[in-house]
Amino acid sequence: MTYRLHYWPGVQGRGEFVRLTLEASGQPYDDVARANDDGEDELVQDWMRNDRPTPPFAPPFLEDGDQVIGQVAAILLYLGRKHGLVPKDEAAALWTHQIQLTLADLVAEVHDTHHPIAVGLYYKDQTPEAKRRAAEFREQRMPRFVGWLERILANNPKGASWLVGDGVTYADLSAFQVVEGLGYAFPKGSHETLALAPRLLALRDRVAALPRIKAYLASARRIPFNEDGVFRRYPELDG
Amino acid sequence: MTYRLHYWPGVQGRGEFVRLTLEASGQPYDDVARANDDGEDELVQDWMRNDRPTPPFAPPFLEDGDQVIGQVAAILLYLGRKHGLVPKDEAAALWTHQIQLTLADLVAEVHDTHHPIAVGLYYKDQTPEAKRRAAEFREQRMPRFVGWLERILANNPKGASWLVGDGVTYADLSAFQVVEGLGYAFPKGSHETLALAPRLLALRDRVAALPRIKAYLASARRIPFNEDGVFRRYPELDG
Repeated sequence: MTYRLHYWPGVQGRGEFVRLTLEASGQPYDDVARANDDGEDELVQDWMRNDRPTPPFAPPFLEDGDQVIGQVAAILLYLGRKHGLVPKDEAAALWTHQIQLTLADLVAEVHDTHHPIAVGLYYKDQTPEAKRRAAEFREQRMPRFVGWLERILANNPKGASWLVGDGVTYADLSAFQVVEGLGYAFPKGSHETLALAPRLLALRDRVAALPRIKAYLASARRIPFNEDGVFRRYPELDG
Repeated sequence: MTYRLHYWPGVQGRGEFVRLTLEASGQPYDDVARANDDGEDELVQDWMRNDRPTPPFAPPFLEDGDQVIGQVAAILLYLGRKHGLVPKDEAAALWTHQIQLTLADLVAEVHDTHHPIAVGLYYKDQTPEAKRRAAEFREQRMPRFVGWLERILANNPKGASWLVGDGVTYADLSAFQVVEGLGYAFPKGSHETLALAPRLLALRDRVAALPRIKAYLASARRIPFNEDGVFRRYPELDG
């Protein structure tokens, strides 16, 4: 059965964490938004409105036959186990999930740098608040998250090549996306913070060089970053 | 081995979701903050600073022998499996986790109603922004989350007694805490929304009547809601 990924069309957003894991797994999937550009907004809304017993609260969500899974971290928990992108050891698998959940918190905070008041309002209607929140994020939160990831790599008993154990997990793929996203959204504001995290930058490069990820990034399937996604380049929010 | 729960002293906060699951499981645990009131702030900081291979990013975190688990949803995933607070069926267990992750998103949004700009600033230094964000939360987000939970109960093929299947899961315990918290923080603003969710209110009552939860809520172990936790009663943020 081919996976079907549902997400808003035209953006990487939170869907990108699922795409990266599907791509690294070498699994075929229909990115429904790409195949059905104009209709997916409505299709996503319909899925969330309907009377299925397990309605997703928000996209992205993944169809695998009869099973429908929402929430990025839950989707990756599922795919990681199925396709070997997580250690078999239970404690290591849970640690991988814990890292993913913390990356999800980071992503939510990045989202709120441009939408600190309401998802439903335009950026221009919350720009003053966004400037304050983005400054706090750049100066306080980003260094804390990045420093934590760097420390995990430094302390990994199996070496600093990967976040967990000695092989790639979905958390590494997500960390790649976060580093890329921070560099895109805050080219000035992230520079110093990332320079203090050489192991994390090396991880970013290591993920980008995985053959399947490399092919994906060079393909048209990889949507460029843009100002409709989670990571947005608004110069007034950068340092 | 007795579990050791680490969290900031004096508040329910995110730690309460873990406490409810531990209490419902009938498992003994040391709530380290309660035993060590003045010292826990420092102890938590020390845990996060140290060079263990799996440092938690933030409290709460749980020690089970050598294993240290952070992130509420990961802790409940672990405890739920171990103590039968989640179905054995894999798809149902994942659905339970997906609900928990969505409740975690709700809790983060509630937190941001009083801290829309920065965790590190006092409420009084972000009150105007908090008023705007809280209005959006009350009018747009809370109805959406509550409506989703109500719909899950209505659509559960096993009946509306519990969110998943026909028995209590950790997601039910968390939904109880969320309903209690919304009622505490927004007594006016949540009234109409919750009145439209009779199944969710019945679930709240059903959880409160579980013998172990009933005993817990009547005990001194249950910290009252207060204005240092996630759910805060600030009249200017209510409807």
